[in-house]
Amino acid sequence: MTQGVAKDFSHLYSDETKSRMPSQLKSIIHYFNDPNLIFLGGGLPMSDYFPWDNLTVESPLPPFSNGIGAKPSGDDADTCQIHITKNLEESQKGVDIPLSRSLQYGYSQGQPEITKFFKEHHSLIHDMKYENWDVLATIGNTGAWESVLRIFCNRGDTILAEQFAFSSSISAAEAQGVNVFPIPLDEHGIIPSKLETILDNWTEGAAKPKLLYTVPTGQNPTGSSLSFDRKEEIYRIAQKHDFIIIEDEPYYFLQMEKYEKDPANRVVKSYADHKEFIQNLEKSFVSIDTEGRVLRLDSLSKVLAPGTRFGWIVGAKDILARILSLQEMTIQAPAGFTQSIIAGTMNRWGQEGYLDWLIGLRHEYTKKRDCCIDALYKYLPQVDYIKINPPIAGMFFTVNIDASKHPEFATKYGSDPEKVEKAIFDRSIASGVLVVPGNWFKSQGQTTPPQPEASFKSEKPNEIFFRGTYAAVPLDKMTVGLHRFGDGLYEEFQLTK
Amino acid sequence: MTQGVAKDFSHLYSDETKSRMPSQLKSIIHYFNDPNLIFLGGGLPMSDYFPWDNLTVESPLPPFSNGIGAKPSGDDADTCQIHITKNLEESQKGVDIPLSRSLQYGYSQGQPEITKFFKEHHSLIHDMKYENWDVLATIGNTGAWESVLRIFCNRGDTILAEQFAFSSSISAAEAQGVNVFPIPLDEHGIIPSKLETILDNWTEGAAKPKLLYTVPTGQNPTGSSLSFDRKEEIYRIAQKHDFIIIEDEPYYFLQMEKYEKDPANRVVKSYADHKEFIQNLEKSFVSIDTEGRVLRLDSLSKVLAPGTRFGWIVGAKDILARILSLQEMTIQAPAGFTQSIIAGTMNRWGQEGYLDWLIGLRHEYTKKRDCCIDALYKYLPQVDYIKINPPIAGMFFTVNIDASKHPEFATKYGSDPEKVEKAIFDRSIASGVLVVPGNWFKSQGQTTPPQPEASFKSEKPNEIFFRGTYAAVPLDKMTVGLHRFGDGLYEEFQLTK
Repeated sequence: MTQGVAKDFSHLYSDETKSRMPSQLKSIIHYFNDPNLIFLGGGLPMSDYFPWDNLTVESPLPPFSNGIGAKPSGDDADTCQIHITKNLEESQKGVDIPLSRSLQYGYSQGQPEITKFFKEHHSLIHDMKYENWDVLATIGNTGAWESVLRIFCNRGDTILAEQFAFSSSISAAEAQGVNVFPIPLDEHGIIPSKLETILDNWTEGAAKPKLLYTVPTGQNPTGSSLSFDRKEEIYRIAQKHDFIIIEDEPYYFLQMEKYEKDPANRVVKSYADHKEFIQNLEKSFVSIDTEGRVLRLDSLSKVLAPGTRFGWIVGAKDILARILSLQEMTIQAPAGFTQSIIAGTMNRWGQEGYLDWLIGLRHEYTKKRDCCIDALYKYLPQVDYIKINPPIAGMFFTVNIDASKHPEFATKYGSDPEKVEKAIFDRSIASGVLVVPGNWFKSQGQTTPPQPEASFKSEKPNEIFFRGTYAAVPLDKMTVGLHRFGDGLYEEFQLTK
Repeated sequence: MTQGVAKDFSHLYSDETKSRMPSQLKSIIHYFNDPNLIFLGGGLPMSDYFPWDNLTVESPLPPFSNGIGAKPSGDDADTCQIHITKNLEESQKGVDIPLSRSLQYGYSQGQPEITKFFKEHHSLIHDMKYENWDVLATIGNTGAWESVLRIFCNRGDTILAEQFAFSSSISAAEAQGVNVFPIPLDEHGIIPSKLETILDNWTEGAAKPKLLYTVPTGQNPTGSSLSFDRKEEIYRIAQKHDFIIIEDEPYYFLQMEKYEKDPANRVVKSYADHKEFIQNLEKSFVSIDTEGRVLRLDSLSKVLAPGTRFGWIVGAKDILARILSLQEMTIQAPAGFTQSIIAGTMNRWGQEGYLDWLIGLRHEYTKKRDCCIDALYKYLPQVDYIKINPPIAGMFFTVNIDASKHPEFATKYGSDPEKVEKAIFDRSIASGVLVVPGNWFKSQGQTTPPQPEASFKSEKPNEIFFRGTYAAVPLDKMTVGLHRFGDGLYEEFQLTK
């Protein structure tokens, strides 16, 4: 149900964005494929000299009945052979990207065969509310976020972020001299009332925050997921206080049913059809957006593979054009092999096939999440100051611990919860398991937001937490790891089983 | 002949570089492959869920006896089959990068199988003069240059660049608020005496330039190449005035013999061995460098294919570490498919085979250059105010024109050479050929260097030029294009054949 058009947000652009001029030279590349014109304009090597004559990849085929982790058998029925040459057969047109094009300069916005696919995919999932939106190819959300920061922020500007946030995203802002102002969150994500209070009481005369950076689904590191009513509230606050919302959504398709402690109550969720699957997904910020105030960062890193280095941004065309101008000076375009392989795979799987993959992925991660939380309940001390948080999306679980309950909190650790955290971390490493201390993710950074009362005050100053993942290792190994982590906590807190 | 160690250049770093903190989270990824540790640390999806089971590419095999443009026949003798799976056969270790690793997070500095190859390659070509240098993988020189600017420059800083320079490189600086100060060049590149005079007379108290950006070989757009004695002079001036030299060298291996007008005098250069080929290459800035003051940007874009989006920087380890910290927040790493394919190809070709490829490339471009310059002499008006400049390297030729010799220079064009330039450009497009106006490449930008006398004064104010390339199209098409360009000049200048 598209209705409005995107508003102009150029008043929020950085000095850099305002001073970046469109490249005359880039403008001529469009002549390259003009049959009436002989192009002596740019240093484009002839594809005859590309040393790769052809490329073949094998992937499994939808509906992935043996699970998404199953190897293709080689049979036509479940194996997809993608064979790409420098110049395509007629039948491959619109499906594949020939190597002569993907390995050449050009198409900085992404090759059409791939942006078309993901634009259609986006339209299936998100009900856009304004006309002039588009999809821009990126090399993944890390780079996309760093670019978005440069589009909007000058040194000294301020952005909002969840109280605990992906440390690389925060570091990127801080290195650019951008202040990060932390917003309290709970297991349902950012707390809108707290966000509004902070902004309503923003120091008079101090520059208002330009961006809110959020990972709404399976938040990294807390594993929390932002409920839809909160998204609507936050969007209203964004309009009131005129900031842009950046929704960084690598884990969007890793949504799951709620964890059930009793295996008897667990259902393997199956869907009557893809429509039902889609209806069960959380509504996104971008689908609320009526004025082009949201940029959605999507990525293949968690759903296909991180090394694809491929993602896309969905947002208003005007803003995407500014990001493209920056990307033309940085990445130029996602790698050609990647684009040929992804377009070839996706256009053979089709939209329905890709949804099959995502459904399969959801099943796999639900299984892993359940096994992980089961093991935590089994191996961690059952005491009221150690709290297990089963997530409903993403790759991460957290365990919160009241450090003040440590028998030697005052004596050995000088009542410093971070010292307890460090001791648990070191003990875990020594016993052969790695989980990450929560304070590594504090978004209150080294820079100083433009108001003295801005320092984030935790309501539970002695609470520490650890972030673990059920993504990285197989079930058996994970269980052993969590057993080690649990044993470490028993020892550290001098508990007996 | 390595002797010294790199000096500390941290006084030249930008505020951004100084405030970028090492990421704790990135530090733990090294535990991922530790067999004694169960890694629940990061959101790394299991490679079981990467949908590509295997990948195969075909390339020709050294010594490329049929030329580098020949298709592999499929015979074992001249066809190289590279088959890469998620997990490798024992025999592939050290040669190939398994998909389970290349498609995963990690190895931001480049996968070892690929950086090792290009470090060895670099050592064969460039005789390094200090110990602590290294190779850092990039996504090509455009992005590498943009990153290098961020490592060193704050808004308001100044850099030096050739009077005419690749417009994207200049725009990248200007968007960052960095002033670009143009240095005069002739057919042998930057004129050292002029560079020294400019710097010796730099406005007192004004911040000195931090970087010199140069394309020494087959300069873009002028096609000029910097002679070795000039490089030595410029390096001495860099030491005297404490700036870093960035040598952007995508065209380095497109060096050729001097153009001979009489085909009878042309020799197809053959080499007794690879050593002789290497000895015939111009010495680089980085091979003069005794103190880590040079960063060399190398790229596969012009020698293999632009869409690989792969290159590398050679320089002092300390500076590379800073660039890596930035890259971890932007590109993360070059794309995995690219790295698996390039490592697989290069490690099968071997160092000698790659040199065979580069020799073959030199032959191809020499042939194209000769055909191009022949056509220019044949089709362009033979008048003393139209000057053809045959290059000795790279992809570009230029044609310089004294616009004041246009019969209607004063009347129709108001004595404005840029209007003549525009008229020739429009006429060329209309007649079906695209060459690029020289003024698109003026490095004197919109920003104002910190001295009033800094505006670059051309010694030939009425001279315009066009940049063309012999790279992008086959010989027959190129000849037709140059014929059209020549006819346009005859008409524009009202000359008769």
